[in-house]
Amino acid sequence: MLFKQVYDYIMTRIERGDWNIHDKLPSIRLLALELEVNRLTVFKAYQLLKKNGKVYVKEKSGYYVSPADSSANCSVNRSVNSAQFLNEHDLNRTPERYTVQRNCKMSDIHRVAAVYQFSQALIDPNLLPNLFLSEYVKKVFDIYPKLMGTYSTPQGDAELREVLCQYLINHYQIHLHPSEVLITTGAQQAIDLLSRMFIRPMDAILVERPTYCAAIDVFRGQGARLIPVNISPNGYDLDKVESLMKQYRPRFFYMNPTFHNPTGYTLPASQRKQLVELAEQYRCLLIEDDAFQDMYFDKRPPEPLFTYDTEGWVVYLRSFCKYVAPGLRICAVFGRKSVIEPLITAKSLADNGTPLVTQKIFIHYFQSERMQQHLAKLRIALQIRRDIMEEELTLAPIDWKWVTPNGGLNLWLQLPETVPVSTLLDECLRQAIAFLPGQICDPLNEMQSWIRLSYSFVNEEQLRIGIRQLATIAQSIQSREIRC
Amino acid sequence: MLFKQVYDYIMTRIERGDWNIHDKLPSIRLLALELEVNRLTVFKAYQLLKKNGKVYVKEKSGYYVSPADSSANCSVNRSVNSAQFLNEHDLNRTPERYTVQRNCKMSDIHRVAAVYQFSQALIDPNLLPNLFLSEYVKKVFDIYPKLMGTYSTPQGDAELREVLCQYLINHYQIHLHPSEVLITTGAQQAIDLLSRMFIRPMDAILVERPTYCAAIDVFRGQGARLIPVNISPNGYDLDKVESLMKQYRPRFFYMNPTFHNPTGYTLPASQRKQLVELAEQYRCLLIEDDAFQDMYFDKRPPEPLFTYDTEGWVVYLRSFCKYVAPGLRICAVFGRKSVIEPLITAKSLADNGTPLVTQKIFIHYFQSERMQQHLAKLRIALQIRRDIMEEELTLAPIDWKWVTPNGGLNLWLQLPETVPVSTLLDECLRQAIAFLPGQICDPLNEMQSWIRLSYSFVNEEQLRIGIRQLATIAQSIQSREIRC
Repeated sequence: MLFKQVYDYIMTRIERGDWNIHDKLPSIRLLALELEVNRLTVFKAYQLLKKNGKVYVKEKSGYYVSPADSSANCSVNRSVNSAQFLNEHDLNRTPERYTVQRNCKMSDIHRVAAVYQFSQALIDPNLLPNLFLSEYVKKVFDIYPKLMGTYSTPQGDAELREVLCQYLINHYQIHLHPSEVLITTGAQQAIDLLSRMFIRPMDAILVERPTYCAAIDVFRGQGARLIPVNISPNGYDLDKVESLMKQYRPRFFYMNPTFHNPTGYTLPASQRKQLVELAEQYRCLLIEDDAFQDMYFDKRPPEPLFTYDTEGWVVYLRSFCKYVAPGLRICAVFGRKSVIEPLITAKSLADNGTPLVTQKIFIHYFQSERMQQHLAKLRIALQIRRDIMEEELTLAPIDWKWVTPNGGLNLWLQLPETVPVSTLLDECLRQAIAFLPGQICDPLNEMQSWIRLSYSFVNEEQLRIGIRQLATIAQSIQSREIRC
Repeated sequence: MLFKQVYDYIMTRIERGDWNIHDKLPSIRLLALELEVNRLTVFKAYQLLKKNGKVYVKEKSGYYVSPADSSANCSVNRSVNSAQFLNEHDLNRTPERYTVQRNCKMSDIHRVAAVYQFSQALIDPNLLPNLFLSEYVKKVFDIYPKLMGTYSTPQGDAELREVLCQYLINHYQIHLHPSEVLITTGAQQAIDLLSRMFIRPMDAILVERPTYCAAIDVFRGQGARLIPVNISPNGYDLDKVESLMKQYRPRFFYMNPTFHNPTGYTLPASQRKQLVELAEQYRCLLIEDDAFQDMYFDKRPPEPLFTYDTEGWVVYLRSFCKYVAPGLRICAVFGRKSVIEPLITAKSLADNGTPLVTQKIFIHYFQSERMQQHLAKLRIALQIRRDIMEEELTLAPIDWKWVTPNGGLNLWLQLPETVPVSTLLDECLRQAIAFLPGQICDPLNEMQSWIRLSYSFVNEEQLRIGIRQLATIAQSIQSREIRC
């Protein structure tokens, strides 16, 4: 974690009211320990905070939150005489002063109109059976003539929830009741609702390192402390996971164990059972985000952790956005009623229910033979694209490294030190090539030599050309760097 | 505000970490003043908190947050030695212990399968041109053959945003750029995103009294202090609004000035301009929630406050869910870029964008001649239902009072003291009649003699029968109460 992150971290805590006016802040030693950074980094952050009037120093005592600063307006002091406080604070407020606390950097990259789009883990729309789907949808409106005029319940359409329960029985012999299912608008919403229900400021949660970058933003937005768990091609170090669970007692472990985003790694079956046991022992929910389960290449991945769960410690997020129909954004959250019930309330406050139209369109296509055929073809098409990407990467005279992904949409590439990612990204974006820098997938904001390349969105020809261009750019940076 | 509310209020503040372990709590006098309740009410709440071990008393000093209580786990203490704290706190955690902080009581009432459904402000699906819509939708998929395979941007489909800008020009001579529009899944999501962006714990916001009950839950969930502004058939007391703006410097004023939910009242044109001036003067955003603008009966309502806005102090929420197509859940937020930009980030974290399918279906129907015809017919159908409801209410031998709504979906009814609402609701629900008790629409949780009756959902015959039964039940309660 860099100096700027520590600065932002402290500011966020102050803004959230975790640390109030005239509160003593943690010592440099403690904060460095807690954030796993160098003490010098914390010292620098405090110095800048002091310079900016956010904190003040008491000799031989430590750092305290400054009273004059408007950012401390969640303080207890305020509740005592809030009117007066607001008068002083807000006289100069303009709409322009409202700013976001965190920026989703990923969306900035996605906004670039790239021709060689390797940054978005999306399926090429040409790989979906669009013509068939259009015809299919028309039939759905014949089946439900009043579909356009009807709201869904906040929990989601009852028929859809039944179909999904049947799906779990057929595929994994998991028996759930439709009341144990919530329909959300994509996995993103499921992650957001879970965060809002289960994270309170300063709660510790475990996340993989690296992980899905927008999840990091959601968790931080709720004030969580992110405790990283390294993921390797062999899974996690379970002893380490246990010791983290013991030490931090995290609210939950957010994981993506199957064709993991961004690395493509898959947790072996042996670890899955053990993890569920750890979850039970340390009473830590496992949030299993499973978007790529059906997108395997050579053989099926191990069964979801959810299949090992007997005590209700796994919440299973199953997104169907990627391959069934991205335009519908259908995701299901499966879990015990004790988890699903509060989520329904959160969902009803968040948007009062996913549109019924998309749910009903989804049901019928999802159950069809045609969808299975599409999926089989899609797996082959994706495997071919992965192969092409690997071939082009291999041919390039750059010493980059990766582990072949056996499913999913992404390849996780380590660049040699001679090719700095930020330079590469700048030059690539200028040439309409987009990829995701690994750093934004790292809860510690490091992993500066990694990038994520998605092979699923551009067609085979563009894939070849794009990777070749990427290699050419990397090569020219390398020769420049070496010359320097 | 009742004793239980004060209790919950204090607990929420403690849980949020606004008041930490060993912090002194506000005095009874101050809290009573702030919450506008009797001192005895606060005293009772503190006594129960003490009994439950949540607070302790220091002689001649006041009330303090107890250290042993797990609910104080957002505290600063925790960040200092969080691992140890968590160990003590969370050993007995089970999934069952996760509970919602607030319950949306409205949704509880809506869950009842009522035959005489007066509680939901929804349009009877039979009033929508369903057959036409189904045929129409099919054409949409011909226009966009890859619709099912494509994601929307988080901000919403560019074509839809352009169409909506054109709509504002045509109807109100408001000129916006498509970048100043955000598409959300219903107004509920817009309210939620605005709250998340603009409310920090203990922020004061103005809300109408009564107001939309789910908005109260959202605002409270974000830790806001709700300052009520009474709405009457003549609008607000603007002197009072000004003094509240002066006193509290609220972040925003959430308002529903046209065929207001739940009362049906409409703010006169004269007040609209003045309110925008007040907003500018006191730098208080006006969030104008406008779902019923097009559902007027005799004559058009005054133009939205948004039309008077020159400085960017009005955020305009325009929901089209109700009459265009509830199954699509399309709402637009219009505002300055300084407001819309952070909302886009919030939206991308919340669900990464409203489904493209629903947006594209919406566009074409929304622009059609057929939609205008439907709307004209719908106004007449709704007016007839309102007339029937009023007729039946007039015929009933109960001394209830209301003001005729000139648009929207709701009638706001005051019951005589001899008919307690809670008794009426219990007996009605048992007989499959549902309505909304006014109390849950009141930010002060009073208004115990009011109910909201929606005339839009049940057909004319059911409307007559339902209101007659309601009257019969009310009458029998009345005679029982009078006997007692």
